[in-house]
Amino acid sequence: MNRLTLINDALAPADQALIHVSDLALQRGYGIFDFFKVINGNPVFLDNHLDRFYRSAARMRLQPVMPADILREKIAELIAANNLIQSGVRITLTGGYSPDGYTISHPNLIVTEQPLNLPTSIHEQGISLITFPYQRQLPDVKTIDYLMAVWLQDKISQAQAADVLYHYDDCITECPRANIFMVTSSNVLITPANNILKGVTRHRVLEIAAGEMKVEERDINKEEIYKAREVFITSTTKHLMPVKLIDGKIIGTGTAGETTRYLCNKYNQSVYGK
Amino acid sequence: MNRLTLINDALAPADQALIHVSDLALQRGYGIFDFFKVINGNPVFLDNHLDRFYRSAARMRLQPVMPADILREKIAELIAANNLIQSGVRITLTGGYSPDGYTISHPNLIVTEQPLNLPTSIHEQGISLITFPYQRQLPDVKTIDYLMAVWLQDKISQAQAADVLYHYDDCITECPRANIFMVTSSNVLITPANNILKGVTRHRVLEIAAGEMKVEERDINKEEIYKAREVFITSTTKHLMPVKLIDGKIIGTGTAGETTRYLCNKYNQSVYGK
Repeated sequence: MNRLTLINDALAPADQALIHVSDLALQRGYGIFDFFKVINGNPVFLDNHLDRFYRSAARMRLQPVMPADILREKIAELIAANNLIQSGVRITLTGGYSPDGYTISHPNLIVTEQPLNLPTSIHEQGISLITFPYQRQLPDVKTIDYLMAVWLQDKISQAQAADVLYHYDDCITECPRANIFMVTSSNVLITPANNILKGVTRHRVLEIAAGEMKVEERDINKEEIYKAREVFITSTTKHLMPVKLIDGKIIGTGTAGETTRYLCNKYNQSVYGK
Repeated sequence: MNRLTLINDALAPADQALIHVSDLALQRGYGIFDFFKVINGNPVFLDNHLDRFYRSAARMRLQPVMPADILREKIAELIAANNLIQSGVRITLTGGYSPDGYTISHPNLIVTEQPLNLPTSIHEQGISLITFPYQRQLPDVKTIDYLMAVWLQDKISQAQAADVLYHYDDCITECPRANIFMVTSSNVLITPANNILKGVTRHRVLEIAAGEMKVEERDINKEEIYKAREVFITSTTKHLMPVKLIDGKIIGTGTAGETTRYLCNKYNQSVYGK
């Protein structure tokens, strides 16, 4: 249980991974991160996650501390040292120790690894979502800002739902940590194109679906998704998760649909290499 | 230079004030704070700041670690130990060390003190503001979320402005760290009432103005503020600061107006006890 964390360029015991309180993440909520899974020592879709991490850093004007090839080596070192069977790795980059508590400084890079349980088959029981009007700031950047998401936990559990689905100007966008897809009765796969974080699992699902069915990336109206034949969400840890209820309205037959099932199996195969 | 910081219930040397990377402030930008000034060892408007701090904590479902009377004692201890002539004290309360990196846990309380230069007279040269369409999430809570404000620093300096003024649905609301006031040609003092953080300096200015002039707390249209006779912003560190330009448009005569000057002097007197 002597897990390690990378802080800037040094490995430290995970329980001694500390940063000073003057960091801009703690002072002003300013930072980015990315998160990928590791199966039997192999990072899954690492290129996509690192690409997004460096894009997020650039958009937030944060110097990424080290170039991608060095970061890749450090991550490999961390994974080898921790030797977990399945894990999630989070790479965080903060605004750094700011002399005035406001101006971006030299960032701190923090890479943590935790054990993770991943699904191997489709989750038969779909989940419930409630919608909430909210637009994330800088939605194309994977910032550390989950203030609204954490704040809404109480409302979500009161509604006996699993998560919240944001909408804005009548268009649904995303869950705080997942993208959303719908399937129409004529088997068109639709996912929002705008004002969202483009997830790596979302990208992979779109790749799998291409050529197999009609695919559209466009705005989705709230009324439209209530009438979908199938709805599912995608994320690094959840893979494809069927949605049975949105705002108490049953989606399709209220069970995992045929297209969701097909895409989920294909996705799981690509992750586990079967 | 052996300054101290309070972390939970213990004083630590300021440069050794560390928190673990699993804190929800760093992981998810989840936390609140308040900030007050200290003049010759005396906290200014401490009651108002502590009231707001405990209200912010309750709204964010954070246990405030200790009751207000104990916190007040600890703050007094910190101020006495640091013995600075003029300072700013920041009380931060985070989402705590979260086992899953998402759920609110037992908060961390961090109280830091820094030297501070305060104005003693009106700033003769007013500042420039640029407007930007943005609405802070949970605007009535003093959260640590300044992501947009920090991100906009580049745009602000490119426009050779001092700060940004947020507006939403055509109504101006606030600067990231200051409230805004306007004075009409018939000497009515107006400040936004909704979707803002109600500042302690704002409150004090409204108290001073009451009975001396007509005062309105209501929505202010962007076009309306461009035509104001005087505009100023208020904050704990800036006191009253005249605004000479908004989006490149000259406000009134482009110099500190009579009402601003009057309220600023009265406010400074109440702070310095002259």
